[in-house]
Amino acid sequence: MTLTSSPYAEGLDRCDANYVPLSPLSFLARSAAVYPDRLAVIHGARRYTWREMYARSRRLASALKARGVGRGDTVAVVLNNTPEMLEAHFGVPAIGAVLNTINTRLDADVTAFILGHGEAKVLLTDREYSPVMREALRRANRQDLLVVDVDDPEFTGPGERVGTLDYDTLLAEGDPEFAFEMPADEWAAISLNYTSGTTGNPKGVVYHHRGAYLNALSNIVSWGMAPHAVYLWTLPMFHCNGWCFPWTMAANAGVNVCLRRVDPALIFDAIRAHGVTHYCGAPIVHAMLANAPAAMREGIHHKLNGLVAAAPPPASVIEGMAKIGVELTHVYGLTETYGPAAVCAKHDDWADLPLAEQVRLNGRQGVTYHVQEGITVMDPETMQPVPRDGETMGEIMFRGNLVMKGYLKNPQATREALSGGWFHSGDLGVLQPDGYVKIKDRSKDIIISGGENISSIEVEDALYKHPAVMAVAVVAAPDDKWGEVPAAFIELREGASVTEAELVAHCREHLASYKLPKKIVFSELPKTSTGKIQKFVLRERMRSTDAID
Amino acid sequence: MTLTSSPYAEGLDRCDANYVPLSPLSFLARSAAVYPDRLAVIHGARRYTWREMYARSRRLASALKARGVGRGDTVAVVLNNTPEMLEAHFGVPAIGAVLNTINTRLDADVTAFILGHGEAKVLLTDREYSPVMREALRRANRQDLLVVDVDDPEFTGPGERVGTLDYDTLLAEGDPEFAFEMPADEWAAISLNYTSGTTGNPKGVVYHHRGAYLNALSNIVSWGMAPHAVYLWTLPMFHCNGWCFPWTMAANAGVNVCLRRVDPALIFDAIRAHGVTHYCGAPIVHAMLANAPAAMREGIHHKLNGLVAAAPPPASVIEGMAKIGVELTHVYGLTETYGPAAVCAKHDDWADLPLAEQVRLNGRQGVTYHVQEGITVMDPETMQPVPRDGETMGEIMFRGNLVMKGYLKNPQATREALSGGWFHSGDLGVLQPDGYVKIKDRSKDIIISGGENISSIEVEDALYKHPAVMAVAVVAAPDDKWGEVPAAFIELREGASVTEAELVAHCREHLASYKLPKKIVFSELPKTSTGKIQKFVLRERMRSTDAID
Ligand SMILES: Nc1ncnc2c1ncn2[C@@H]1O[C@H](COP(=O)(O)OP(=O)(O)OP(=O)(O)O)[C@@H](O)[C@H]1O
Ligand SMILES: Nc1ncnc2c1ncn2[C@@H]1O[C@H](COP(=O)(O)OP(=O)(O)OP(=O)(O)O)[C@@H](O)[C@H]1O
Ligand SMILES: [Mg+2]
Ligand SMILES: [Mg+2]
Repeated sequence: MTLTSSPYAEGLDRCDANYVPLSPLSFLARSAAVYPDRLAVIHGARRYTWREMYARSRRLASALKARGVGRGDTVAVVLNNTPEMLEAHFGVPAIGAVLNTINTRLDADVTAFILGHGEAKVLLTDREYSPVMREALRRANRQDLLVVDVDDPEFTGPGERVGTLDYDTLLAEGDPEFAFEMPADEWAAISLNYTSGTTGNPKGVVYHHRGAYLNALSNIVSWGMAPHAVYLWTLPMFHCNGWCFPWTMAANAGVNVCLRRVDPALIFDAIRAHGVTHYCGAPIVHAMLANAPAAMREGIHHKLNGLVAAAPPPASVIEGMAKIGVELTHVYGLTETYGPAAVCAKHDDWADLPLAEQVRLNGRQGVTYHVQEGITVMDPETMQPVPRDGETMGEIMFRGNLVMKGYLKNPQATREALSGGWFHSGDLGVLQPDGYVKIKDRSKDIIISGGENISSIEVEDALYKHPAVMAVAVVAAPDDKWGEVPAAFIELREGASVTEAELVAHCREHLASYKLPKKIVFSELPKTSTGKIQKFVLRERMRSTDAID
Repeated sequence: MTLTSSPYAEGLDRCDANYVPLSPLSFLARSAAVYPDRLAVIHGARRYTWREMYARSRRLASALKARGVGRGDTVAVVLNNTPEMLEAHFGVPAIGAVLNTINTRLDADVTAFILGHGEAKVLLTDREYSPVMREALRRANRQDLLVVDVDDPEFTGPGERVGTLDYDTLLAEGDPEFAFEMPADEWAAISLNYTSGTTGNPKGVVYHHRGAYLNALSNIVSWGMAPHAVYLWTLPMFHCNGWCFPWTMAANAGVNVCLRRVDPALIFDAIRAHGVTHYCGAPIVHAMLANAPAAMREGIHHKLNGLVAAAPPPASVIEGMAKIGVELTHVYGLTETYGPAAVCAKHDDWADLPLAEQVRLNGRQGVTYHVQEGITVMDPETMQPVPRDGETMGEIMFRGNLVMKGYLKNPQATREALSGGWFHSGDLGVLQPDGYVKIKDRSKDIIISGGENISSIEVEDALYKHPAVMAVAVVAAPDDKWGEVPAAFIELREGASVTEAELVAHCREHLASYKLPKKIVFSELPKTSTGKIQKFVLRERMRSTDAID
């Protein structure tokens, strides 16, 4: 009984009628065809329908093509969450080129490195970043690079042009009827995203059309998004392509409410004015909304759905959002997994539990996204899953169609990251009895004290429970006796004050004594623009302080 | 600037970590893992959770495998919408075998033909069909076929066993922990569906895992289904695998409410008892509900969502459903397109239009499903799309990932159906100015009278507007002068009466005179079990009558 004797072995092949490579570009074409007059984009005074959004993306594609950009070329962008950024998500891949969204808060050095490493042929850059970009371009020293300025009327600050052309002129060169060049292979690269650099080492993660397509759908299915959502762009599109939401919103035929800057007043204004239903962000974004003065929320009575990821959401955030009536869903993923590839799927009966228990359950990183094949926690040596005991630590691993093609020009890192049939996340976690994954720490952040593992996240959680604490990061500090001990960097809430001794006493109520922070430093925390605390910077600081001591 | 000079050309290949063939089997594994204790199946007194549903499917898979069934083998089933039928949708493909769901209302002859043509190795058959199946098996004369009886406790009628084994015994042989054997290639066959035979010639349509997976997701996205729907099985699962809904419900982690028989009292009871939120069916199913006595609907106050397809929904059905508060969505497709592959996507502003206009707009076959690439209307000779004038007829064509692999053992029919890069539906239609497709007729049903095309559907629509008419079918009758003329077969509503002259007078208000039915026959209409009228039978009847005249 082998396939050769099977009636299905012959005459049932692929052809143009029954096989089309998956690409999220299809979703834009569909929404433009079905809902040409529906609003696609709101940005300040600008409004674009799906027809216009498609036409502008086609213009962009054809103009880039006319200027010699083609399959497998990189187009880099340094843009805020503007219409141009959305258009780049379609116009660039529509000629087989690869979109490299660069974090707008990087310094000139790193930006120059990325422009070089990614081999960008074209750069679209918002006038706001001209000072840094002028310097980055000088350092990158790439004479062949076509630099295009985006001069967004919503940006009124300073910033000269640094390019040879502006975006509107480029669009005007393009053909609004240009036929998208769909990928011949769904495995073709669609975008290039450098990791946040939290562990100090940004890598160029390459996505394909297939994964972008599937995650666009999974965002809808895994979040339970109804058609025609009004989506507010609080999450930077340069971060994992905004978790694939530019493509999701095209499938959803919803509205993209653009936002240049994450600011609670602007956010609540947009929610009120446009009837926003959905938004995403790192915990810090949600915390900002929860902590905003109640007056800012006035007049907002409809249901809001928030997605949180990028860092462990502190209990205070989960609680805070519940209090202001935001239905928060916790997702988890990495740049390497197209953004969210796991979701803390809720259960009806959780609603009946005490709030603290709900917060604990929802604080977990969860289970696979619908289109991701697997998530588990394994011993990376043996590649055996850890028991579901909530205690045995291992490395969190993913496999499936939401795992990157690999790291650009880094076959060794790619091989290591994808070895053994699983993607190694570098996050440490446990499997709880219900199979949900809970992050305990990042492998680089775990503290080993007297031979015992201490989760920096657990110590942070204890500190977060103190009312004076606004943000906290715990890292290992070298210690002669214990090898390492926990050191805590703390940002206080405005107007609050607390002593080191008080904080340690507070921690004693929540932690075993070997886990207590041995050093406490009050200082502002270095963050990536995606809202993550750069512990590697603090770790360096700890060591150098020590060296001086 | 070719791909070989591109940085993306190397080191970014597929591996086990980042590529998994798409298969809807993944959805069952996911729901069993994430929601093990959630209800998956309700059938009479039986209840299965997702954990149990998975375990039973794994038992089925491993028991079949132990009995020698493997990759590329066909497993046929003659089953109602029962738990066993759902399990077969997972257990059979879980060993690489192909599920052939046979229409339970076929006669022994056609069933025997399908068993032979599909080369089934195993048959699962419900005791209700024993009389026909005994005869079918005798005619098929397949000594090697393993016949398994399904003895559903909900079926209390007569019917001896015809197999050598019963389903429960088979399951008991299986291993509830058996690991699903996922397809090595997402193009592998998952199921075999014979077309309804409306045009007289059932063909064996082969689906692949990729398409089943994608349509399972698209049903959720295109319908806007919220997670955890309660889905009532009014649509036979033997019809295009129930439009892929067994797989959709596994992705949705909803409840499958089984139903052996489409009967308004049973349906309303189930809706009331289980809080049904969604169901699908041919127009006749919806008509049955709209026409049921109001008392049957008592106590049902929640929102119901219905999907209608399989035949043009008469205006009375669209109106009727609106009146009883069912949110009806109109979809369109063929066995060849995994069931629905087009949807009459609604627009907000339609709600403000007069009801008649709403009914007209919603009565169209619409636009592509999210995961289907294209639908259009073309001149099949030139393969050029017709103008969007709502008048120029052409053949409706589909292309994309929701087009079958092909017809089993029929390379010529496959080639013809998939020629020119599009699937030729055999349906005739027009493109309206907004790009929506409207079916005018099936190519075999069009009536050519004095050189003019008359759409049989248009004449039917006019007749449906008469209150005495319950069901109607218009076919061509040979005519010496005109070549062909429209002849109408009519079923009257219970208790209603009307004369031929009255009906013609009524039609005159709606139709040009050359389109008026020249013959009217009052009689019961021959229907396929999917609720479609078999016009080819009527056409034959028309000719033979003529011959006698
Ligand atoms: N829901 C979450 N809960 C806890 N941590 C999260 C969550 N979502 C994301 N993370 C953290 O973010 C990481 C992924 O971040 P990202 O891909 O942006 O770059 P990075 O890993 O911070 O940077 P680099 O890889 O360059 O060090 C995960 O590995 C995890 O540590
Ligand atoms: N929404 C709809 N409106 C009008 N007709 C529809 C709709 N949905 C399906 N149909 C009709 O049903 C047909 C598909 O039916 P199906 O695949 O069950 O078998 P069949 O075409 O009736 O049988 P055969 O191909 O054997 O003649 C379509 O070609 C179309 O004529
Ligand atoms: Mg990382
Ligand atoms: Mg057909």
